[in-house]
Amino acid sequence: MQLSIIGYDPLGAWKKTAETVDELLSYRNPSGVTWINVDGLENGDVINQLAETYRIHSLTVEDIRDVEQRPKIEEFDDYIFITFKAVNHASENGFEQISIVLMRDTLITFQELSGDSFNPIRRRILDNAGRIRKMSADYLAYTIIDSMVDEYSLALDDMSMKIETLEERALDENDEAFMPDLQRLKQALIRIRIIVLPLRESLNVLLHIESPLIKHNLRPFFKDIHDNVIQTAETIEGCRELLAGLMEINLATMSNRMNKVMKVLTIISTIFIPLTFIAGVYGMNFRFMPELDMRYAYFIVWGVMLVIAAGMLAFFKRRKWLF
Amino acid sequence: MQLSIIGYDPLGAWKKTAETVDELLSYRNPSGVTWINVDGLENGDVINQLAETYRIHSLTVEDIRDVEQRPKIEEFDDYIFITFKAVNHASENGFEQISIVLMRDTLITFQELSGDSFNPIRRRILDNAGRIRKMSADYLAYTIIDSMVDEYSLALDDMSMKIETLEERALDENDEAFMPDLQRLKQALIRIRIIVLPLRESLNVLLHIESPLIKHNLRPFFKDIHDNVIQTAETIEGCRELLAGLMEINLATMSNRMNKVMKVLTIISTIFIPLTFIAGVYGMNFRFMPELDMRYAYFIVWGVMLVIAAGMLAFFKRRKWLF
Amino acid sequence: MQLSIIGYDPLGAWKKTAETVDELLSYRNPSGVTWINVDGLENGDVINQLAETYRIHSLTVEDIRDVEQRPKIEEFDDYIFITFKAVNHASENGFEQISIVLMRDTLITFQELSGDSFNPIRRRILDNAGRIRKMSADYLAYTIIDSMVDEYSLALDDMSMKIETLEERALDENDEAFMPDLQRLKQALIRIRIIVLPLRESLNVLLHIESPLIKHNLRPFFKDIHDNVIQTAETIEGCRELLAGLMEINLATMSNRMNKVMKVLTIISTIFIPLTFIAGVYGMNFRFMPELDMRYAYFIVWGVMLVIAAGMLAFFKRRKWLF
Amino acid sequence: MQLSIIGYDPLGAWKKTAETVDELLSYRNPSGVTWINVDGLENGDVINQLAETYRIHSLTVEDIRDVEQRPKIEEFDDYIFITFKAVNHASENGFEQISIVLMRDTLITFQELSGDSFNPIRRRILDNAGRIRKMSADYLAYTIIDSMVDEYSLALDDMSMKIETLEERALDENDEAFMPDLQRLKQALIRIRIIVLPLRESLNVLLHIESPLIKHNLRPFFKDIHDNVIQTAETIEGCRELLAGLMEINLATMSNRMNKVMKVLTIISTIFIPLTFIAGVYGMNFRFMPELDMRYAYFIVWGVMLVIAAGMLAFFKRRKWLF
Amino acid sequence: MQLSIIGYDPLGAWKKTAETVDELLSYRNPSGVTWINVDGLENGDVINQLAETYRIHSLTVEDIRDVEQRPKIEEFDDYIFITFKAVNHASENGFEQISIVLMRDTLITFQELSGDSFNPIRRRILDNAGRIRKMSADYLAYTIIDSMVDEYSLALDDMSMKIETLEERALDENDEAFMPDLQRLKQALIRIRIIVLPLRESLNVLLHIESPLIKHNLRPFFKDIHDNVIQTAETIEGCRELLAGLMEINLATMSNRMNKVMKVLTIISTIFIPLTFIAGVYGMNFRFMPELDMRYAYFIVWGVMLVIAAGMLAFFKRRKWLF
Repeated sequence: MQLSIIGYDPLGAWKKTAETVDELLSYRNPSGVTWINVDGLENGDVINQLAETYRIHSLTVEDIRDVEQRPKIEEFDDYIFITFKAVNHASENGFEQISIVLMRDTLITFQELSGDSFNPIRRRILDNAGRIRKMSADYLAYTIIDSMVDEYSLALDDMSMKIETLEERALDENDEAFMPDLQRLKQALIRIRIIVLPLRESLNVLLHIESPLIKHNLRPFFKDIHDNVIQTAETIEGCRELLAGLMEINLATMSNRMNKVMKVLTIISTIFIPLTFIAGVYGMNFRFMPELDMRYAYFIVWGVMLVIAAGMLAFFKRRKWLF
Repeated sequence: MQLSIIGYDPLGAWKKTAETVDELLSYRNPSGVTWINVDGLENGDVINQLAETYRIHSLTVEDIRDVEQRPKIEEFDDYIFITFKAVNHASENGFEQISIVLMRDTLITFQELSGDSFNPIRRRILDNAGRIRKMSADYLAYTIIDSMVDEYSLALDDMSMKIETLEERALDENDEAFMPDLQRLKQALIRIRIIVLPLRESLNVLLHIESPLIKHNLRPFFKDIHDNVIQTAETIEGCRELLAGLMEINLATMSNRMNKVMKVLTIISTIFIPLTFIAGVYGMNFRFMPELDMRYAYFIVWGVMLVIAAGMLAFFKRRKWLF
Repeated sequence: MQLSIIGYDPLGAWKKTAETVDELLSYRNPSGVTWINVDGLENGDVINQLAETYRIHSLTVEDIRDVEQRPKIEEFDDYIFITFKAVNHASENGFEQISIVLMRDTLITFQELSGDSFNPIRRRILDNAGRIRKMSADYLAYTIIDSMVDEYSLALDDMSMKIETLEERALDENDEAFMPDLQRLKQALIRIRIIVLPLRESLNVLLHIESPLIKHNLRPFFKDIHDNVIQTAETIEGCRELLAGLMEINLATMSNRMNKVMKVLTIISTIFIPLTFIAGVYGMNFRFMPELDMRYAYFIVWGVMLVIAAGMLAFFKRRKWLF
Repeated sequence: MQLSIIGYDPLGAWKKTAETVDELLSYRNPSGVTWINVDGLENGDVINQLAETYRIHSLTVEDIRDVEQRPKIEEFDDYIFITFKAVNHASENGFEQISIVLMRDTLITFQELSGDSFNPIRRRILDNAGRIRKMSADYLAYTIIDSMVDEYSLALDDMSMKIETLEERALDENDEAFMPDLQRLKQALIRIRIIVLPLRESLNVLLHIESPLIKHNLRPFFKDIHDNVIQTAETIEGCRELLAGLMEINLATMSNRMNKVMKVLTIISTIFIPLTFIAGVYGMNFRFMPELDMRYAYFIVWGVMLVIAAGMLAFFKRRKWLF
Repeated sequence: MQLSIIGYDPLGAWKKTAETVDELLSYRNPSGVTWINVDGLENGDVINQLAETYRIHSLTVEDIRDVEQRPKIEEFDDYIFITFKAVNHASENGFEQISIVLMRDTLITFQELSGDSFNPIRRRILDNAGRIRKMSADYLAYTIIDSMVDEYSLALDDMSMKIETLEERALDENDEAFMPDLQRLKQALIRIRIIVLPLRESLNVLLHIESPLIKHNLRPFFKDIHDNVIQTAETIEGCRELLAGLMEINLATMSNRMNKVMKVLTIISTIFIPLTFIAGVYGMNFRFMPELDMRYAYFIVWGVMLVIAAGMLAFFKRRKWLF
């Protein structure tokens, strides 16, 4: 579990890491924006101590610690609580939970897994890149959510590429791994959708909250994130329809092959079965079989056989069953 | 049918059981919160007597006694009526009905089946664990609903594990029990969904009721239950999609096997049918068959047969039908 | 066409039948609630005469007479018009149309088919059972709708039993009547749904009508009917999903059988076709076939055949195709 | 292109046809309701001239002339514009476009195709049948829309009859035209739905327009049309579900037949293939085959063959594969 | 990257092209409407310079440059921002992005690809065709969106024609390219739908914006575009249902063919397999086979064979399996 604190105002910025909450809080200074980040959620005491200091509701603490929590945004008296999933390839299911407590001049973030997802933002603060140092804590919250939402698009781009590979495989009749692979991709889409849809709803709620914690000039920024999330959700639906289409192509391909196999069997069988019967007839050992003694019987039988075979082929040709 | 009564305030707590409603009511004392619990719904007189004492509407009494009642929350003049299903493995269909009548300082609960589902809550009251003794009757209602809703999640976790077992079986071509098992799980999901969806709706209604019976600082708690129920509903939908995917995989697996069986049949048949025909021809007993007397005819015929077989195999290889 | 009139107040109740509308109206007396019932809709004059007397809108008259009318509830200046379908097994399609015109102290009901559906309610009035005699005309309307809606549940219970029978038949491979029976049940569900869904909507509208014709203390009663209708609609959806599941099981069962039939054919064919070919070879009549004169050739050939058959069986066993 | 004008008030009614708009307009008289009808939309000048006279918006003119226009109702300052499709069997796609411009005392209707759809209404005006002569222009608009909407029901009744014919054919295994016929009916339903659904929406909008052009006492009439259109839409959905069910029955029937064909093939093949093999064995020409010289070998072989055949049949009977 | 500027008022119009933004801005004159068009989005500096001059929000600039942006309409303090996709066959995916910034007297348009899509509008301005020169900048915005939306209809007409071609191919049993072609069309529909649906939503928002930038008399025009987009969306849904129907027809056709192939195989096999067995029996070489020496045995066997074959054919005929 790692604790870090960043302070900044338009004039400067500093960063400290701490071992204990007491040490962490000693670094606070009253001016500018304070950003406290907690990496890892195992140590409940640290979270409780922070919650007590910043008067965070017990339900919020529960939500922060429950990593199965569904994305949501809630307004409390003193803060807005935002929790959602971020893409994290180090995690088992591909996601980690990020929780944000947005107060007037302070932002506390909780990461499920320790990692460096926030480093680019930290660098922008310390290097004074862009306008982030000039803005208040709500802009910092926006920046964090925005960069996490951008990761969704990257994850979807990755999936789109996998779908393209599947597109080529859909017409391969011998690819037995196709269907399981397609289903695996489909389930990956369900998993990402289950975290995107509630976020879309929550952001919609956020846009209609009349809170002094989010300044009026930040509305377009949050609306922009909302649009991105909507677009992500639409892309997911598009991918799902593509996959459904690929499955239909593959099933039709399989069925086509079956048809072809059946046709070959039918043609060969129906031509030779009658001929074999005729050969069998003249292989019988009856004493009195007049044909056997006829001079050209053998050649006549051959002729009859050829006529039957040609007739069969003509029948199949008329039915367009010849390959 | 069992009657019990619990009284508590921040200073103390007591519990009594009673044989009759009169005895039960004699234990009431005016201060603090009173929680009356009725186990079993067979004895209509008991319910009617309680309804008369606490002025409960006749329709509410009907709803309490009708165990087929769909989950709902209704506001009456003097009380809020909440009825829903709780997971109970002792029950035939896996659920029992819980009804709650929430009044100012009194809470009456009706359980369809006698059991110990409420024991942990009773213990928290009597042992003064957590904040429950400091709170009013609405918090008690919240605690009861919350613990029942948590059971849904556990039931779903159980189902998720069963789905995982099915995932492994979906690719087994010989598992004829797969489809019925999958359908059984699907129907279990339908059954749980039918009790979760109306509860979600009802809780939404509850969140917008402006009733003095639910204090303002309890709103976040009821919102939290609502979120849990929404998440449960989403998990159910997710499970349904997973099952649909598994069915598709299984159907594709079955179809694949069919294809393979057909291929083997086709290959063996199409190779040997023409050869058998040739053998049949030279098994005919015509007197004048010039080939029969040729010196190497037998070996030539063998040669022709091998060429035909090889040609067939090459044709199948080109078509990628060889296994 | 039958005309009847019932009058009641808390003190007494009486019932008369009449031949003509004039006779019917002559029985009216000013105190208490008057309930006029018209059985059968063939005689337009009777309905028109009543409509004129009670100032019923021409569109309402049209709706009463149109037995294809979809369930609806409409508020007019002087009355509320309610029309819906009741279960009636005597009817061709299983339903009859009931129309109710609810006025201040008068209720007129129109039944499509003469029957005794209302008898239990009449008896409750005449026998002063329950509270019905103490209540006004709106409670009578509630009682009628409620008893008709209860019939839906009974009809659905009946269907549930039929579905259970189908459940057992779904796994029977030889039951060719299964699919048509299932479709028949499905269409019965569609028919009942088509009359329940609009009623649900209409009752929702009724709950939000601010009409002096429905007293405030009757709201919970109408809400109760609404809940019943919602539950009926949900049960219908549940039944539909069950049927969809049964169809999937049945299709899988059929496909399984096909697979088994194919397997038997494949195994027998692929084992014997090569053996028959070998027998054919040594049935050829070439003069020079060295094997024919060998001492143990016949037994060697038998040995070869047994080896081939055993090899085939081993191959099938490895592929798990043996039954 | 035909122009006609009808004038009426409670006292009288007259009808004129005209060649030019100028002639038409000369017939106008100030009292009562004026109904101008334009048959055919080819002559843009006529429409433009009328638009100028009655101050119709250029967009409305565009909508009148665009016969691909989707049904809609729009309120302008001086008029309400209503456009929808009417059933017309003379038309290529089965529908023609009707546009109505409803002004205070004037109604202008535009028909895509010249025909006699409005004749019954004209006769009711000229013959003073019903209340139409006593009412204002909005009632005329209602009458026109109502009679056109009634045609939808007739068209649907027609389709229902076709569906009933299909119902009988669904179980016919040899009816190859079934599926294309079903799809044709399905597409006809899609076509009619595409014109009914927007009309339902538009009428809903109309019911909430607060316009002096539609008098308050006409609301129930327009609500009545709305109900009819809703019922039509529900009937269409019902038909679609019926068709989906028929398709499922037909597919199951086809699959059943396939199963039966396969069974016959399997039974005949599996019984005779081993027997033929045995016959082949004893048709071999080896010099040393001890069985050939045995006295009763031939009859023993026959016995063995019969035992094998009986065993096969018993196996099939146990598996319930015998037909 | 091309810059052009057009100025017009009811009295006159002029057009200039420029190399740099400074040059472009020097052409502005205060009276009338100014339309600045930017072709190509590569040069960020040009867009930034324009954004600075016209005080365009940084998020708008981002949206203009992001060609993956989903169609949307946003109101800012000084302008309305509209972005959507236009059909452009020169583009890789068939679409290009158009962004419009609508200010009081100025309209700035950004095209993703340089092309001549706006030429007809430019000509209408310069030639003073229609009313465009008399109207303000909002009418210009309407004209541009309207002409782009019209292109959607053309693209859909093109697709409808392709669907008609598919309709003919759906019944062709040998058309293996059918399913992939159908899926390709389906995906083209998904692509166009993904750009039409958000536009429909956005235009709905636009219709409810109370902005001085869109004059009241332009409302009907924007409502008209909205209706067109709704109609386009409905056409897309209709096309999707048609394609789904075609797929069902094709699958049924394929299945029918399979059935026919199977029938031929079954009939030929089941007739000849028993006959061949009989021939095999009398081809056995047992020394003691009484039939072989009978005078008319051969002809009797022929008779038996014919009877068996006729019996089989009769059986098939009764089962209606003969083709």
